[in-house]
Formats: sequence, structure tokens, C-alpha cells
Amino acid sequence: MRAICLRLQYEGTNFFGFQSQPGKRTIQGVLEETLSNLVSEEIAVYGSGRTDRGVHALGQMVHFHTKSPIPPAHFAYVLRRMLPDDLLVLESYEVPLTFHARKDACWKTYRYQIDSQRVPDLFQRRYHTHVPGLQLDLQAMKQAANFLLGEHDFTSFCSPKTTVLDRRRTLYQLLIQTHALGWQIEITGNGFLYNMVRIIVGTLIQIGKGERSAEQVPNILQARDRQAAGPTMPPEGLILMEVGYQPWMDEN
Amino acid sequence: MRAICLRLQYEGTNFFGFQSQPGKRTIQGVLEETLSNLVSEEIAVYGSGRTDRGVHALGQMVHFHTKSPIPPAHFAYVLRRMLPDDLLVLESYEVPLTFHARKDACWKTYRYQIDSQRVPDLFQRRYHTHVPGLQLDLQAMKQAANFLLGEHDFTSFCSPKTTVLDRRRTLYQLLIQTHALGWQIEITGNGFLYNMVRIIVGTLIQIGKGERSAEQVPNILQARDRQAAGPTMPPEGLILMEVGYQPWMDEN
Repeated sequence: MRAICLRLQYEGTNFFGFQSQPGKRTIQGVLEETLSNLVSEEIAVYGSGRTDRGVHALGQMVHFHTKSPIPPAHFAYVLRRMLPDDLLVLESYEVPLTFHARKDACWKTYRYQIDSQRVPDLFQRRYHTHVPGLQLDLQAMKQAANFLLGEHDFTSFCSPKTTVLDRRRTLYQLLIQTHALGWQIEITGNGFLYNMVRIIVGTLIQIGKGERSAEQVPNILQARDRQAAGPTMPPEGLILMEVGYQPWMDEN
Repeated sequence: MRAICLRLQYEGTNFFGFQSQPGKRTIQGVLEETLSNLVSEEIAVYGSGRTDRGVHALGQMVHFHTKSPIPPAHFAYVLRRMLPDDLLVLESYEVPLTFHARKDACWKTYRYQIDSQRVPDLFQRRYHTHVPGLQLDLQAMKQAANFLLGEHDFTSFCSPKTTVLDRRRTLYQLLIQTHALGWQIEITGNGFLYNMVRIIVGTLIQIGKGERSAEQVPNILQARDRQAAGPTMPPEGLILMEVGYQPWMDEN
């Protein structure tokens, strides 16, 4: 038995999210079916985390166990030929049998992309949320971001559907930048709750538009109440960019 | 009765080309149906030219006649709300009743995009043809391009299905450039025959790969035989970038 890790990309548009659901096209479902066919065993795929319906990934990580003698690096090559073109395996390699894509993840980076042009970019429309004419006060947003950095209970910034009990998470970096089509917000943390990135972005945008002040952020955190924070932004602008593991991983 | 001109963009992926066909989703078909509903008249839409199934446009021009009192600039605004998101009207304005989007076009620019990375860019895959590892001799291709510039009979560079009898066309500019993902070829001319850009690109790539020499181009032209030229490249890398009209058009 060996453990294989895959680094993969997907366009979320035509998937019902990462997690397997009966009768729905999901990333986990397509991967498990394709791998099971390839190695003629029942394969279970474990991701670094779920992504919601419509959310994209440029650096998702998954692992699985197999008895197959296929050389680890060949999985990427073979899977690129077998998988649909909105699901792309960048590389595959062997990891210790104790490795777990979710439990061993140290940090993740998400990017949220907004096209603020009057008329949206046709070729980028699937990867940006269109908010025409959006103007943002970067100073106020950076001040708000500083209140969010570090360890906090993010109950106010996750969906009420969240089942996890411990809502403390640590944010390491929060970058707000302009780009050719509008704005992008990159958030790195040790883990993210259900809808957390999309609610943080929705709240930062309210602050950037002057609808509420950066000084409210500590109160929002303290409230531990979803109603205290801003709206959940749509999924199409969200991309899982990278998942980080311990340095020893790089030596494998 | 007034004539209205639309400048529009589309992603060709999910269209059966520009021209109306019964039971098929086409750009002309969707535009005519949507406009007819909007103004409650039977509207006929005339394009600057057809684009094939799978070909994109960032600057297609069409015109139509209508009795509607809708202010010309409002058509773009209203149509953006009515049309599907792979068909985008950039602007609309009134033109003289004698204006014809195809007959009055003076020049057109097409771009052909190739992703030559080993693994294709996920978010750009619909707008690039993937030719992994493609290396090109730019000097040879520029030499070949020089043979193609100017007025020629392009019978060798069009589909045998072409019904037009006069196959003389004039190429004004032919640019071969590298870009972040690979290569792009931009061709400007007074008009293009059926599959002409895709066959020119296929022939230039053969020359860039050293499979044939630039000096053969005059013979290929002279042959007036489709068999003499290179292959027809796939449609997904092709984009109609711009259609040019007489300067007086800008004053309207």
C-alpha cells in the first residue's frame, strides 16, 4: 500500500463543489471514479479541505492510498489524459502512509477576484465577481485587515451551518490589491471555516465603501454572531491558490 | 426606420458559429430572437462576417434596421441584461440607413493564440489552442509572413468549401509574437476567406517548426490548391479582434 499526493486545479463552474454527493458532479466524485477505474480498486480521495459549489482551485491538494504499481509521478500524466478539461492534475508524488492532505495542512491561501469594470471582461467572467464601478478606500480596508490578523474566534465570519465547534483560526496575511480588471484580496491562514473567506471579503468591501468603519471589526469578532458581519460574496470570484505543508514535505 | 450598429463580444465555445441555423444556438440566431422580442418586430441582423463554430470575437460588428423609438445607445444597455453571459454588447449607435456591417468593412484583425506550456493554463484553455512544447523559428516565420503580405489569390489558403469566386485578398499586417503562455499571431487584412486565418497559421507553424521553408510560400500561393498549404488549426485559439470602417464612421 502506498500513499499518493496530487496537486490539482479546477474550474468550479460546472461542479457541485468538492465533496462527493450522490448523483452530482463533484471534484471528489470525479477523482474517485477516475482513479478507481485506473487502478481497478475502490479509491477514497481526501482533500486539504472542501471548496463550495462554484469555487475554483489553482493549488488544491489531495491524497489517496493504493496498491497500484504505477510509478507515483505517472499518475499526473495518466490522469491528465483521463480527466475532463476543467479538472487538471499538475503533479503527483508519493508521501508517507501517515500523510493526510487536510490534517497536515499548515496554511492555505485564497484569492478573491473582483471585476469592477462597467462591462465585465468576457474571457475572465467565470473567475471574477462583477461589481461595476466598485471604488474602495484601501486605507480603511487595510486598517480593518489588521484587526483580523492573528488568532480569533471567527464565529461571526462563518455560515450558521458550520458544524465545527472550535472556530478559532489564525490569519497570517491579508493583502488588498488592484489589478487590471479591478480588485483582488488574498488571505492566508492556518484554516478557514465554512464561507469564511467570502464573508471576510463581504465585510471588507462594506468598510472599503464606507458603509461601516474599520473600528467595528473588533466588535464584529467579539459578537460571535453571523449577523454582525457583512454579506457572503458570490463563489465565482474565489480561488484556492495554495496549500502549505511542513518543510519536510518538500524533501519528499 | 433607423439603422443601429452593435459592437459585440462572444465566447464561441457554446455557439454553432455566427450564422443562423435551424435548431442550433448561433450568435445571429440569439441576437435576432432577443432583438425581435425587445422591439416586437421581426429583426434581421447582419454581421461584418461569419465566424466558425468555436471561434471567439472581442470586436465583432453587426447592424440591423428597426422602427423602435429606443434611443440608439440604450440598446447596448438593455441587451446586456437580456443576452446570455457569453454574448456581450459593448456599444450601440445609430448609423446611416445605407450602412452595411459587411460591405462597408475596410479591414479586420484576427488573433490566433497558442498555449505552448506542458500543462495548459486552466482559466485560458477556452481561448488558446494547446500545443505543448511548441518551439518556433521566428525569423523563418517573419520571412514567410512577408511573402503573404499584400494582394494575392488565397485559394490555397481557404477551405475547398469556399463558394466565393474572387479569392484575391490583401493582407496589411502579420505579427508573430510570444506572450505569457506561448505564441500569438495577429493578421490584419481587407477580408478573409473561409478558414483562411486558421490555414495561414497552420502553414506558418509548419515553417516555424522547420517542416517546410519560407521560400515555399510563393509556390503555395501560386498553386491555388488547398492541398499545397498547411493544416487548418483548431477554432478555439481564434479571436476576431476588430473590424475597421471608413473614417467617416467615427464621426457618427
